[in-house]
Amino acid sequence: MTQAMAIKLPRLQNDLLELFRIGYDAESKGVFRMGFTEADMQARDWLIRKFEQEGFHARMDSAGNIIGSMPGQHSGPVVAIGSHIDSVPAGGMFDGSLGVLAGLECMRTVRDHGLHCQYPLEVYAFAEEEGRFGGMMGVQAIAGELTPQWLETAHDANHMLLRDEMTRAGLNALEALNARVDPKHFRAFLELHIEQGPVLERIKKPVGVVDAISGVYKWLVRLIGKANHAGTAPMDMRSDAFMGLADFAHEIPRIIDEDGTDKSRLTIGWVKLKPGYAHTVPGEAEFTLVGRDTDPQVMHDLADSCRRVLSAIARKHNLMFEFEQMSWLAPQAMSDEVIQAFCRQAEALQLDYEVMPSGAGHDAQYMAKITPTGLIFIPSIGGVSHAPDEWTHWQDVEIGANLLLHTALDFARQSF
Amino acid sequence: MTQAMAIKLPRLQNDLLELFRIGYDAESKGVFRMGFTEADMQARDWLIRKFEQEGFHARMDSAGNIIGSMPGQHSGPVVAIGSHIDSVPAGGMFDGSLGVLAGLECMRTVRDHGLHCQYPLEVYAFAEEEGRFGGMMGVQAIAGELTPQWLETAHDANHMLLRDEMTRAGLNALEALNARVDPKHFRAFLELHIEQGPVLERIKKPVGVVDAISGVYKWLVRLIGKANHAGTAPMDMRSDAFMGLADFAHEIPRIIDEDGTDKSRLTIGWVKLKPGYAHTVPGEAEFTLVGRDTDPQVMHDLADSCRRVLSAIARKHNLMFEFEQMSWLAPQAMSDEVIQAFCRQAEALQLDYEVMPSGAGHDAQYMAKITPTGLIFIPSIGGVSHAPDEWTHWQDVEIGANLLLHTALDFARQSF
Repeated sequence: MTQAMAIKLPRLQNDLLELFRIGYDAESKGVFRMGFTEADMQARDWLIRKFEQEGFHARMDSAGNIIGSMPGQHSGPVVAIGSHIDSVPAGGMFDGSLGVLAGLECMRTVRDHGLHCQYPLEVYAFAEEEGRFGGMMGVQAIAGELTPQWLETAHDANHMLLRDEMTRAGLNALEALNARVDPKHFRAFLELHIEQGPVLERIKKPVGVVDAISGVYKWLVRLIGKANHAGTAPMDMRSDAFMGLADFAHEIPRIIDEDGTDKSRLTIGWVKLKPGYAHTVPGEAEFTLVGRDTDPQVMHDLADSCRRVLSAIARKHNLMFEFEQMSWLAPQAMSDEVIQAFCRQAEALQLDYEVMPSGAGHDAQYMAKITPTGLIFIPSIGGVSHAPDEWTHWQDVEIGANLLLHTALDFARQSF
Repeated sequence: MTQAMAIKLPRLQNDLLELFRIGYDAESKGVFRMGFTEADMQARDWLIRKFEQEGFHARMDSAGNIIGSMPGQHSGPVVAIGSHIDSVPAGGMFDGSLGVLAGLECMRTVRDHGLHCQYPLEVYAFAEEEGRFGGMMGVQAIAGELTPQWLETAHDANHMLLRDEMTRAGLNALEALNARVDPKHFRAFLELHIEQGPVLERIKKPVGVVDAISGVYKWLVRLIGKANHAGTAPMDMRSDAFMGLADFAHEIPRIIDEDGTDKSRLTIGWVKLKPGYAHTVPGEAEFTLVGRDTDPQVMHDLADSCRRVLSAIARKHNLMFEFEQMSWLAPQAMSDEVIQAFCRQAEALQLDYEVMPSGAGHDAQYMAKITPTGLIFIPSIGGVSHAPDEWTHWQDVEIGANLLLHTALDFARQSF
């Protein structure tokens, strides 16, 4: 029976294209729906109307999350499906929106087939997932992970306070604390997202089943040597801070070989040399080091190894070494029960899938703290995301939405 | 006879301190006498008066150079002594000024001892040595190395034209071409300068006799890969431009071991990553590479090797590699005759000296094109220069000035 059941791609396509127009900028060809901006709130209104037009219920909670539900279904724990509809500046069509609108399409399919679910579907469009204010505010509110202090002080890169932006959007920051949902409300949470990376495309598989979301730490590292005239200072009398950094970066593959896994990432994405003149030996190198892995122990091992290697290199190059840990977010495993359900349904649908980590953060990582949670990926062309040329083939969208549907129904224990 | 002869340190000290006050900034504790600024011209006026107070002649030529000479000495080729009195922003007391004022003190010593020179002494305070306008304008004028085109278009970092700044200072840029001096006018040119590097202090020798001034090339290099999410892009699927740069920098010691000498320098002093976000794999790394050596062939070998290594690393990291050669200045050997004279006089004065290269550029490199030229260094404490805390012990100033005196007299063939 379930084999025959399928979502209707044109409806989902239509919704994605409609939503893409809200906050779309013709010049950059990207969408600007950063959390609690006018375009973001407009999109939330659009989504509520969308649910209502289909005969579903929809409401905005006190944190700005939109929750769509099916009237006439049994009350009781729900199978929640969702993601977010806010975007980064100049974002693409699929990041977040796909997981929400695929949830809506699953609801429509359930309705069209007259299914009755023991655990009814509920669709969540979480607020502010992209971290404009440095968190995943909407889903954190639902998971009970917010504090009044944070809500009062969080601000974006332009020093706009979350509190003020929520007020402008007709919300009250402190009331976001009321958005917490009792974990008993949930049977499971399922998220469909684009991969935002190159793996699925490279290995030519249409679906990734995420086993864990990587933890991430960010260091601000400073190597301090001595600025010198690049002509008068012989190579062996220098304390060249950049050469220390280069030697460290050169060791990164070895650090991962020895202390990491194939899921480990170490990235130096920002570097500043002082004084930064062509003819002056750099006296100081400041840089960011971002480490990721899905295993908390591996994250600690990587961090230890980085610290040891940096210390040794600083000694060798006659540099001072200091670092500040800007953030440390632990990895989050997905639920075995949900992983197995995704795999089972993928096999039933004859889909070639890959069990893989998620290197990026997703709403699922907070839902996983309160209910059995799973996350699936579909391929991103060229691995591109957070950019106007983010794209995913419609065939893959259909495949992902159908796997989401069948896994949701697996949990919902539907009957006719 | 010459053993007994010596400069009088207090006079030289007094002159250095007086000149230091012109353009001195109490806040930074540095001197601001950048070429053709008001302070620079004030210093030139002061210097002319200084010569005249001592009974010498002095004049400013059409390029802004000050030339001091002794009346009553034979006409004929002169033994020129000199350096510059302009400074970098927030410069120190000795850079340039020492070589000029030591020349003046040599003249006073000659006068005090009633010496008559077959080749009379002449002291040069060259204009604009520090390259505010991208050259060594004053000495280039004397050596006949300027062109009208350059004089009309040269500008400083703030887009101030040399032409306009010279007009403001009461000079005419194009007339600087008239400042060229027939090489036959010179018997030799001698320059005393602080080392501006750490070598003499490190090896505990009071004097360096320069055998050659390094040539220098400057490249602007660009490695272009692909910006990616630092979480979703596995390490082996990245085109990380910074990792390419780090691998290249790591090879620099090997490149110098294989293709350079102990006089070679390779410096990466400026780096810019794009997009330059902590959580994004750098898609582009732009950086400067400055290479130096005293041997033209070695400079070419170093440049070739850098290009080969960069190409190989670009291939390995799946990057594009391009570079622009911003400048190429050939090395300049000092005259064997003058080197030998400096060494001979140093031995006579029982000074422990080191024959060494100059990694920085000096007026001597242009005088060397028209007359036998030599350059000596005295130690810089901590190797510091171009900074307010530039300092040299007065004992070393005295040693350097006396070596300059005796070598000048060696060339001048003085008689009583």
